[in-house]
Amino acid sequence: MQQFIQKHLLDFKAYEPGLSISEIKGKYGLGKIIKMASNENPLGVSPCVLQVLNKYSAYSFRYPQSGNLSLRKELANFLKVPEKNIIVGNGSDEIIDILIRLLVDPEKDEILTFKPCFSIYKTQAKLQKIRIKQVSLNEDFSFNFDKLSQSITSNTKLIFITNPDNPSGYAVKKDILKEFIENLPQGCFLVLDEAYIDFADPLEDYSFINEFLLYPQVIFLRTFSKLFGLAGLRLGYAVANEDIADYFWRVRLPFSVNILAEKAGIAALKDSFFYSKTREVVLQGREYLSSALKKMGCEVFPSQANFILFKPPYEANELFNLLLQRGIIIRTLSSYGLNDFLRVSVGTEDENNFFLQVLKEILNV
Amino acid sequence: MQQFIQKHLLDFKAYEPGLSISEIKGKYGLGKIIKMASNENPLGVSPCVLQVLNKYSAYSFRYPQSGNLSLRKELANFLKVPEKNIIVGNGSDEIIDILIRLLVDPEKDEILTFKPCFSIYKTQAKLQKIRIKQVSLNEDFSFNFDKLSQSITSNTKLIFITNPDNPSGYAVKKDILKEFIENLPQGCFLVLDEAYIDFADPLEDYSFINEFLLYPQVIFLRTFSKLFGLAGLRLGYAVANEDIADYFWRVRLPFSVNILAEKAGIAALKDSFFYSKTREVVLQGREYLSSALKKMGCEVFPSQANFILFKPPYEANELFNLLLQRGIIIRTLSSYGLNDFLRVSVGTEDENNFFLQVLKEILNV
Repeated sequence: MQQFIQKHLLDFKAYEPGLSISEIKGKYGLGKIIKMASNENPLGVSPCVLQVLNKYSAYSFRYPQSGNLSLRKELANFLKVPEKNIIVGNGSDEIIDILIRLLVDPEKDEILTFKPCFSIYKTQAKLQKIRIKQVSLNEDFSFNFDKLSQSITSNTKLIFITNPDNPSGYAVKKDILKEFIENLPQGCFLVLDEAYIDFADPLEDYSFINEFLLYPQVIFLRTFSKLFGLAGLRLGYAVANEDIADYFWRVRLPFSVNILAEKAGIAALKDSFFYSKTREVVLQGREYLSSALKKMGCEVFPSQANFILFKPPYEANELFNLLLQRGIIIRTLSSYGLNDFLRVSVGTEDENNFFLQVLKEILNV
Repeated sequence: MQQFIQKHLLDFKAYEPGLSISEIKGKYGLGKIIKMASNENPLGVSPCVLQVLNKYSAYSFRYPQSGNLSLRKELANFLKVPEKNIIVGNGSDEIIDILIRLLVDPEKDEILTFKPCFSIYKTQAKLQKIRIKQVSLNEDFSFNFDKLSQSITSNTKLIFITNPDNPSGYAVKKDILKEFIENLPQGCFLVLDEAYIDFADPLEDYSFINEFLLYPQVIFLRTFSKLFGLAGLRLGYAVANEDIADYFWRVRLPFSVNILAEKAGIAALKDSFFYSKTREVVLQGREYLSSALKKMGCEVFPSQANFILFKPPYEANELFNLLLQRGIIIRTLSSYGLNDFLRVSVGTEDENNFFLQVLKEILNV
């Protein structure tokens, strides 16, 4: 039946799931597994959110409220942005997919990103048969805005920038971004993917979502998956000019955000203690891990996110496997074309210490 | 900024959310609201599912398992179908969207449906700039297969049939469907949307998912939203030939099904008591409501689903509003172009009786 699949999709790669925590336990006979692989919240789910989830689980037989009006209201309040500028989706992934479909004409437009970049920008462009142009990051993973600007043509309809970037943790300050945005040609939009912005320090040097009215070509894309601890529930949001937001809601599937994600999101926005605590744990852990990794001879890249990119003094894939056998899951980066590098998410103090201790033993330093 | 939206999307209609239960309570000063509008499960969430939801809510900070391998395994077991033929999505809506994108080339192919049909077939075709051809249902909402077959051309790539159909409740028996399918031209696929099939009676006269291997052009689409009581969690599934299923998984967003939907789905499949009990309540309630509505002078259409279409001896929209003011939400059908009809979901015995009692008072019969 392959012959009936659309031609441009034939070389899509099959997803290859990693081993689950229970499979790893079984394979290596381990009792305890530490996962520092997916940039999830080291503190888990906020107790306030947990309470709300348990309260509303009995409503799971009801369809969610289409349009997510309650959540939009709460986000508007949290961000100090009018409701009409707010977008919500089944994870940032769905928002990315819809923005591409809304704005980019496969027949003439193209998408521009850095290389490497978040895989979903590429897969969703390809799914829509849209040409994607990529500009290499600098050697140190910083952004080459000159090259990016030079690559913009009259066909460039959508640009994706992840800031702070994944998997490097590199972040560019807002003044540089603003200058780049001010020079965008009319009709060229920027999705500024700020999944990790809550971990940038100091935040006010990086975030300018409060000035969104000045930048109608920018869609500020965010998520509840990282700092808010809701990766499993799938909840992304964005702030955009009101026409883009209006059309987003016109074409989004009416019930794509599940009922518990909506309730959990509202509760998470109200829990300022959990927000601050997570930020504190991540910022301290990031500093601690970076410094310790350097001492062990790793090349460590400065990070404004909740993970650290490093180049170990050891074959990266082998090191990954040795850690796995000891119950520690971190992330290889071959899918980004970075075979010599590894990425570790900041964990709790105990998790960070256990990881460093095992790493020390393996590296024999 | 409207000028930068893709031209074929400019007339997409904005979603207009109905009043929520709490808004209706406030507006009409009501203490109690009965919702019989969205074909949800009258028994709510299964107690076994509820237990699982409360157990796993603390894992909501973890990403779901990409590929939904555990759920596919459980579905394979439940349906007696190999795992490689199983598709899972964020509601049937996502599956419909992806099947269209996989199979239909906007430049030459077209989609064929009955009219009226489920709105998502049309919106997702339109979003992909795909031509949709519609064949009117017979006056009594039965399927005109002669007209449907005559409308198939060499460009017809995908056909959608809802069986049992919504909003009529009409269902066609499997032998007639099989004959239609056997005459489909090569390369023409049928999505057989069986969202309500669990309520057909006797089931074996309608369902032939166990013979899926004989019908590689058919994608059997199902949902956890109705009989399984998980509408709010968003979980749809399908059985398809292995090439379609393989490519589905290649292009589906890796984490579109949330972690609690996966856990709940697995638990729901194991709860055969809740399955039987729901079926019993719906089948009895359907018979009871149909008979009572007829006695009140309504034209009632025979239903194989968990709802009833009827034409009241009263202006339909006005009757809807009068019911609403008394705390009963049912469904108007102007979005289907059926202004003189109403649809009521089968409720619990108490809900059915309350609805009938209020209706009787309004109709003064």
